[in-house]
Amino acid sequence: MFGAGDVRVITIPDATLKLSTDAIVRITRACVCGSDLHPYHSLPASDEGTPMGHEFIGVVEEIGSDVATLAVGDFVIAPFAWSDGTCEFCREGLQTSCTHGGFWAGNGIGGGQAEAVRVPFADGTLVKVPGAIDESQYASLLSLSDVYGTGWHAAVRAGVTAGTTVTVIGDGAVGLLAVLSAKQLGAERIILMGRHEARTNLGVEFGATDVIAERGDEGIQKVLDLTGGHGTHAVLEAVGHMPAYQQAVGVARPGGVISRVGVPQYEEAPVGFGSLFGKNVTLTGGPAPVRAYIEQLLPAVLDGTVNPGRVFDVTLGLEQTPDGYAQMDARTALKVMVKP
Amino acid sequence: MFGAGDVRVITIPDATLKLSTDAIVRITRACVCGSDLHPYHSLPASDEGTPMGHEFIGVVEEIGSDVATLAVGDFVIAPFAWSDGTCEFCREGLQTSCTHGGFWAGNGIGGGQAEAVRVPFADGTLVKVPGAIDESQYASLLSLSDVYGTGWHAAVRAGVTAGTTVTVIGDGAVGLLAVLSAKQLGAERIILMGRHEARTNLGVEFGATDVIAERGDEGIQKVLDLTGGHGTHAVLEAVGHMPAYQQAVGVARPGGVISRVGVPQYEEAPVGFGSLFGKNVTLTGGPAPVRAYIEQLLPAVLDGTVNPGRVFDVTLGLEQTPDGYAQMDARTALKVMVKP
Repeated sequence: MFGAGDVRVITIPDATLKLSTDAIVRITRACVCGSDLHPYHSLPASDEGTPMGHEFIGVVEEIGSDVATLAVGDFVIAPFAWSDGTCEFCREGLQTSCTHGGFWAGNGIGGGQAEAVRVPFADGTLVKVPGAIDESQYASLLSLSDVYGTGWHAAVRAGVTAGTTVTVIGDGAVGLLAVLSAKQLGAERIILMGRHEARTNLGVEFGATDVIAERGDEGIQKVLDLTGGHGTHAVLEAVGHMPAYQQAVGVARPGGVISRVGVPQYEEAPVGFGSLFGKNVTLTGGPAPVRAYIEQLLPAVLDGTVNPGRVFDVTLGLEQTPDGYAQMDARTALKVMVKP
Repeated sequence: MFGAGDVRVITIPDATLKLSTDAIVRITRACVCGSDLHPYHSLPASDEGTPMGHEFIGVVEEIGSDVATLAVGDFVIAPFAWSDGTCEFCREGLQTSCTHGGFWAGNGIGGGQAEAVRVPFADGTLVKVPGAIDESQYASLLSLSDVYGTGWHAAVRAGVTAGTTVTVIGDGAVGLLAVLSAKQLGAERIILMGRHEARTNLGVEFGATDVIAERGDEGIQKVLDLTGGHGTHAVLEAVGHMPAYQQAVGVARPGGVISRVGVPQYEEAPVGFGSLFGKNVTLTGGPAPVRAYIEQLLPAVLDGTVNPGRVFDVTLGLEQTPDGYAQMDARTALKVMVKP
């Protein structure tokens, strides 16, 4: 990406091993993320550009001499953050705060919207998928690299369990997979706030019990009307803009939890007596440590119990990646899969 | 209180039963609260004035015909919010959000800085103290009406358990009792941030392992130095002003929890990627449902295992209550007990 709206597919030198803990992964599928749209709107123009993409599945092509748990030919899922797998935060399952880790597409690490990429701390970062993989499974496996684990994080952090009432704000891929996650965790009622009917229909298939298209005060009132005037125990905020935050505050039940996984496009927000404090509402969430969730979520994906890959509605070749950004930006695509 | 800094002791009509669920309580001890200092600084002047005080212990003097669990002569603790005890929030232990409840000293309900008061929903609101009560126990019993339960709430909401590292911000009565609570819940290390040595010394007796007198960036750096650069799992914020919030953000470990019980004197605060979100830090807390904690905390108070009443360092007669405000405001008193 060379600036806002300026995505180009260019040829760069092949990825090579740099450290003994690296692996080179040949990318099978990648995607464009809703969060990629933030730089797509605001990245300052530059001649150098920045690599893009932080979600991919692929095949291990080469490993460094200290890589112990992977072999050439392994099919792997890469989480959207790389991590050493050994620090205190990794051991606690907060790999996004790994003391030696980082994010794709920056600081000398390539992006996933590419043919191949160097993976730091391959043992810590990558998750091997066992058995034979069919192409029909690619979409759901790919969702584990970010959007499914991120939706799951929202629900887990909110403490969703049997009987919880949930509002999900946002009908993008993460919001829809937050619905699926809440359903898997036993939520009793799942209210999906979104206004793109094709998306909210998928949300209903994933487990949403109610859909509210209205936003702002009108949308808040609809949720309150459905919940005896109190709101829901859990609010999963999968947008990241201030109106979504305000909506979350409005529908959170006293004693409830707002769990944010949409990257906040604001720094300051209301948290005082009139918003969070007076109602004892908890604000939680952050970048999902999807690495911590992949092994847990993988079996139900592999046996077809869940099909989170349904959020992918457009598949494009690598050369068409710029068009993928445009389609997601125009909301004509829900989630774009890139096929190198 | 007739305006900022203007506290007067006046004679008003005796409290009388109004509803069949009321009780009249003759007040044995009351207090001035740190949160009373907020109106003491800012209340607009008025001729009518407002009753004050929301913490008291006393003896039931009269009960309405529908009061079932209390009898005249019972010694009781009143939490700082009254509540019906039967609504969905009371049953969940969030009595501060009781659908029929409210706070003392407003809307026709008197305050605790008085000789007697009408208690709404007496069955739901009051907790009877069993057995014979010695005057030496008054202070600790009184602490259960607010400051001890509030410190406890901070620690419980932060998820303090065996092995947790904790920072407590504020060396007022609530901060010191947050230290005691964290200690009771098994915290491994408790860093108390406060600069009044007499107070922090009591904090050390309550269980603080480290005391940091510095504030702001300097104070934050000291906590980071003590914790391998990462901060503590739990941060109990018992002040309510923005610098305390900023300090809390600075010392919260990735994946940690900031638990606020100081009433926020701000509405907006940093919560974005650079403060809470990027580190997956949770923000929780609110008005403590102390009613939910009194029965749980009472046995260790009655048998002398803990002595939270040590936070009271000044006792004044009811006529001297205005002087109690002045002493707390000047920080020459930590916590003032009022003896009607």
